[in-house]
Amino acid sequence: MKTGIVSVFTQPNVPLEFREYPVPAVAEDDLLVKISMANICGSDLHIWRGHGSKIPRGIPQVLGHEMVGNVEQLGKNVKVDSTGARLEEGDRIAYSYFKPCNQCWMCLCGKPGCPERYRDWIGMSSDQPPHFHGAYGDYYYMKPGHWIFKVPEDLPDALVSPVNCALAQVIYGLNQIEITLGDTVVIQGAGGLGLYAVAVAKEMGAGQVVILDRFPARLELAREFGADHLINVDELSVADRVAYVLDHTRGTGADVIAEFVGSPKVLSEGIEMLRWGGRYLWIGNINLEQPTQIDPGNIVRCSKAIQGIIVYEPWVIRRALDFLSRTKHKYPYHKIISHTFPFEQINEAFEFASEGSAIRVGLEFNSTSS
Amino acid sequence: MKTGIVSVFTQPNVPLEFREYPVPAVAEDDLLVKISMANICGSDLHIWRGHGSKIPRGIPQVLGHEMVGNVEQLGKNVKVDSTGARLEEGDRIAYSYFKPCNQCWMCLCGKPGCPERYRDWIGMSSDQPPHFHGAYGDYYYMKPGHWIFKVPEDLPDALVSPVNCALAQVIYGLNQIEITLGDTVVIQGAGGLGLYAVAVAKEMGAGQVVILDRFPARLELAREFGADHLINVDELSVADRVAYVLDHTRGTGADVIAEFVGSPKVLSEGIEMLRWGGRYLWIGNINLEQPTQIDPGNIVRCSKAIQGIIVYEPWVIRRALDFLSRTKHKYPYHKIISHTFPFEQINEAFEFASEGSAIRVGLEFNSTSS
Amino acid sequence: MKTGIVSVFTQPNVPLEFREYPVPAVAEDDLLVKISMANICGSDLHIWRGHGSKIPRGIPQVLGHEMVGNVEQLGKNVKVDSTGARLEEGDRIAYSYFKPCNQCWMCLCGKPGCPERYRDWIGMSSDQPPHFHGAYGDYYYMKPGHWIFKVPEDLPDALVSPVNCALAQVIYGLNQIEITLGDTVVIQGAGGLGLYAVAVAKEMGAGQVVILDRFPARLELAREFGADHLINVDELSVADRVAYVLDHTRGTGADVIAEFVGSPKVLSEGIEMLRWGGRYLWIGNINLEQPTQIDPGNIVRCSKAIQGIIVYEPWVIRRALDFLSRTKHKYPYHKIISHTFPFEQINEAFEFASEGSAIRVGLEFNSTSS
Amino acid sequence: MKTGIVSVFTQPNVPLEFREYPVPAVAEDDLLVKISMANICGSDLHIWRGHGSKIPRGIPQVLGHEMVGNVEQLGKNVKVDSTGARLEEGDRIAYSYFKPCNQCWMCLCGKPGCPERYRDWIGMSSDQPPHFHGAYGDYYYMKPGHWIFKVPEDLPDALVSPVNCALAQVIYGLNQIEITLGDTVVIQGAGGLGLYAVAVAKEMGAGQVVILDRFPARLELAREFGADHLINVDELSVADRVAYVLDHTRGTGADVIAEFVGSPKVLSEGIEMLRWGGRYLWIGNINLEQPTQIDPGNIVRCSKAIQGIIVYEPWVIRRALDFLSRTKHKYPYHKIISHTFPFEQINEAFEFASEGSAIRVGLEFNSTSS
Repeated sequence: MKTGIVSVFTQPNVPLEFREYPVPAVAEDDLLVKISMANICGSDLHIWRGHGSKIPRGIPQVLGHEMVGNVEQLGKNVKVDSTGARLEEGDRIAYSYFKPCNQCWMCLCGKPGCPERYRDWIGMSSDQPPHFHGAYGDYYYMKPGHWIFKVPEDLPDALVSPVNCALAQVIYGLNQIEITLGDTVVIQGAGGLGLYAVAVAKEMGAGQVVILDRFPARLELAREFGADHLINVDELSVADRVAYVLDHTRGTGADVIAEFVGSPKVLSEGIEMLRWGGRYLWIGNINLEQPTQIDPGNIVRCSKAIQGIIVYEPWVIRRALDFLSRTKHKYPYHKIISHTFPFEQINEAFEFASEGSAIRVGLEFNSTSS
Repeated sequence: MKTGIVSVFTQPNVPLEFREYPVPAVAEDDLLVKISMANICGSDLHIWRGHGSKIPRGIPQVLGHEMVGNVEQLGKNVKVDSTGARLEEGDRIAYSYFKPCNQCWMCLCGKPGCPERYRDWIGMSSDQPPHFHGAYGDYYYMKPGHWIFKVPEDLPDALVSPVNCALAQVIYGLNQIEITLGDTVVIQGAGGLGLYAVAVAKEMGAGQVVILDRFPARLELAREFGADHLINVDELSVADRVAYVLDHTRGTGADVIAEFVGSPKVLSEGIEMLRWGGRYLWIGNINLEQPTQIDPGNIVRCSKAIQGIIVYEPWVIRRALDFLSRTKHKYPYHKIISHTFPFEQINEAFEFASEGSAIRVGLEFNSTSS
Repeated sequence: MKTGIVSVFTQPNVPLEFREYPVPAVAEDDLLVKISMANICGSDLHIWRGHGSKIPRGIPQVLGHEMVGNVEQLGKNVKVDSTGARLEEGDRIAYSYFKPCNQCWMCLCGKPGCPERYRDWIGMSSDQPPHFHGAYGDYYYMKPGHWIFKVPEDLPDALVSPVNCALAQVIYGLNQIEITLGDTVVIQGAGGLGLYAVAVAKEMGAGQVVILDRFPARLELAREFGADHLINVDELSVADRVAYVLDHTRGTGADVIAEFVGSPKVLSEGIEMLRWGGRYLWIGNINLEQPTQIDPGNIVRCSKAIQGIIVYEPWVIRRALDFLSRTKHKYPYHKIISHTFPFEQINEAFEFASEGSAIRVGLEFNSTSS
Repeated sequence: MKTGIVSVFTQPNVPLEFREYPVPAVAEDDLLVKISMANICGSDLHIWRGHGSKIPRGIPQVLGHEMVGNVEQLGKNVKVDSTGARLEEGDRIAYSYFKPCNQCWMCLCGKPGCPERYRDWIGMSSDQPPHFHGAYGDYYYMKPGHWIFKVPEDLPDALVSPVNCALAQVIYGLNQIEITLGDTVVIQGAGGLGLYAVAVAKEMGAGQVVILDRFPARLELAREFGADHLINVDELSVADRVAYVLDHTRGTGADVIAEFVGSPKVLSEGIEMLRWGGRYLWIGNINLEQPTQIDPGNIVRCSKAIQGIIVYEPWVIRRALDFLSRTKHKYPYHKIISHTFPFEQINEAFEFASEGSAIRVGLEFNSTSS
């Protein structure tokens, strides 16, 4: 019987453990992926550190949801990907890490953000078949409802692996908040999502992009992704940052602020930077029970809007892949996965990612491991 | 020389004073209105009590912006109202109390909420000509840029006077937040705006309207305006109110929350009542420097949106007047102006309005006073 | 072995034939419905008469897609309806007659109108298992992907049976074209969809509804559904109809025109009735290869828009059912199914429906027939 | 008394005549522009050739509406441009050639496309003061309501002069039809507007742009503006063009078609190229009384939309100027005005422009002519 290795979370702040499980038979509507690269997302770190998540989860649990791999085995009814293109064993694919429940109002409206989008999947105990429920393992077993897209050959794994979480989230968020040609867009945070957001905002027609972070190296990288203005938050006070944005917008303020910091306290600064009628896109700040302050008058008197966004519509993956193919010579996407580790060193990788200096850490799977 | 009386604000918490000014000659593009009814809006009370407004204003100042009156004199170039209908002296009109500056981004976008919408007008010192800059006086002098609409004869002043502020604000706000057929709409606050909002939401297709207030009489009145569920906030805890909304929406939460309380603290309760993907309309809470708390995770993880709205687009007045004509036998609009005083008793009217038991207080102008 | 009867289409203009098939075993994710009422939609008549449809279809074929019924048998994995409400055998349900392919761009965008929405279902030969692919039979066999909604007990079959086609189509169409409070809405055609559209437009906030048809009885019925103005097209010329609409809109034209006639030639008249910036909703005119004329200048110079709409998003069925419960005492929905026939007389029913005097013809299934 | 020269249209197909008029005194809210460059737009040619326009116009009439110039004299109340930037005599400005009537429904909604936007201006007889009502003259006299924007110094007249018609129209149209990141956009027509549309669509995030025209030179120029696919309509049949678009969109069709040809007959081809749910932007086809054919089924069954657009919102000029500054080294905007003539040779210029080989013809005004 073929087996595969996964690394599982058992409790906060202790090393992930490796487990071996039998590779399940693939049912007729399902498919099995051989993972080639999986990344460490901020939410994986939150869980590992025991911060904030209240979603009940099974233990032991395979973490990880940002990944790419190749079709190892197709169920006999699975013949095409989500655009209707023929799918064959060996094809490299990108796919959503969630699937709609089709029994909630979001699903009834055809909108992403289904509250039950991980049901019976990500977050389950790996002791439950089919065991391979997460990205940090040799395989990922997929049931119907996941959206699947063949990956163009010109894109290496390091470019594709962040598509199904980081890049898709950024594209969908900026699509929803709507960039108008010439808009001034302020990006809060120059981590992986923030860097993608610079390039995406520019390609959507932003007139100028201002980015804020505290790490000079990230800010310099943001410049390579097209940022027009870099603000180091350790060097300028909040008042001076707001003044900077006003100074560069004829005194009007930014049209759009997009938050990718993950810290509640940047909200009020962002609202102050917005022009009358401006839009605040809230993506990074998924923290629960960490309230922050908001000034009602600055929203109401100025007709400002705040839009929270979680996950994305399925078309976004297809467009994200095409976007990478189209612009890969223009922006240094290969620097997003700033560090890689072999899967076997996942605990070292988590320790390193926790330190915060990496943009995004990737795990590479040895193709001979199975 | 013809003169007119105005009542002016000189400093917080002292009685308004009456002043007499010469009625100015009407320039060729302007017009002069003889006020017949003017109401006391919450923002007038805030100024009088010295709460919160930071807009620099002239002293002495004619307060008031919610009103109706008749054309006393037309400038020679003014021949039609804002829909192109012929305008004549004596015609009763409703009109915006603000005008676009045409030099800001909101104006360039054709959107309401121009930051300079009161420039050289409401808030000026009444010692500056043309003196009649506010609603609490015999006359209102209007320059080009105000939007003007003839009023149908079937509507008494008590129905028309709140149109240019309270009713137009409600219609525009609910229009912007978009009611979908069958939506559950929660209205926070059963004052004048909240009561209008019940009727407007129902007429826009809301499936059910829940209203919250602390005054039983207001809640009963809300029922007459079409509310399906009344919640007295003194009788139910916040947790129970949220549970009530979930119980009446198959566990999903409300589609829309609309805030007309004017108190920062109702925000978080409203956000909790919202369904995933729901929309929070923030209108009443114009308070500056009174921050409140917001839970990021409850916005971001649930794709919720917050929209602040101030003032309205000009078409709204025309539609508000027609709405009243169309539905005046269905809803008790005459109860919105719950109490009236003669203009001469404006100080008694302010005292009474401050107590809070009135829905909205109106001032009647004796047509023989000029 | 249990069997059931279906009536099948074999070729245009000959009577439908009755066939008997074994009732299939219900697979674990599927369910079987016992039909109680099914209606004759215009598109069924088109197929029967051999008009226009180019969709390749199996022969013999069970026609019909507008229906209601009760759960006869649930697959063992089917425990809830599409809102998550518990589902049990015997429950009466309304459901979409189509399901997304999840492999086209419309599906990737979460939008209705998937080109393959009938794949392997409606239109298949009834000789192929599971045989019961259409409404005109004792049973309807359903696979995953159909959206299913429990029906409130207060609604008789005659009100519910048109929900999954006629009423849902109307609600979704008007929702997409967006009714603003006080809009003038012109409805072209007072058949079943047009009559629903009058009520729905009014409940969404239309200020006035104008309806056009050639049958006086339909126009009178439109009045009962809330129409403010009735125009008999046999009594007024096109120019006079356009003038009528202008006369009743202060010379501006209608905000929205909604077409439910099914004849190409009403387009140009509707465009003429629209105000500058108005919106034309095209629903009834599904005819292929029957081109009509359009005047470019009247669209381009006047910033008018045309929106075609086919099928609907799943939430609409839930809202349609609630809408009926909420307004059933206000509008005579029971008159939409103007005539009923027992299922056994389906050929008489088709002949009668073809004559055109009925609003909508329903087929009743004897509950003892299985 | 200072005088100025204008060239006037007197009847179709005869040369424009030069007239001399006194330069009017500038009223306190007005301003006078010294024209430096004015272009020949297709609609000017239509009038001159006697094609199609039904707008009643004064004779003699100064044609022309696409232009740039410098402030010759400011009325004493005019101190800033439409963004609030200080304005001084000598400043070069771009400005709308229309102004809102503020008395129609479009104006009440803050939307462009006011039917009376030329009232008392463009199209008046030049014998009526202030005489200088059009672009083809030494001066342009402007009343309040025109939107005015200071022009950055880095942009030569040849880049700025098409802003207030061609470029602003393109940007607003594509903004309204909404480009989603990665969209396939088909541009019908590679004249001035079509060429701008290629660059604007790419900068708004289009994934690929297909352009159609019959002139090889225009198509080659389109490539310089960023077009990915060139189709010469003389070389491919309509069916082959449609097939080409399907072939390059995974069989789906284009997301957006934008029409800049000005010929009615391209509509049906464009509709065929659209994907299900796609959007057709109709801008060039302002022809009246030249109906074309449309296939209802191809709109309705496929949920396609058509949007006519005329003129634009005022913000667009500001963004168009900034867009040129930002991208002037990327696209050969200087080739849009492919030919220039001195104003004195306006009749030669019209003859040349009528031949059709020029992209756009500009008229240069000698700065010593006044």
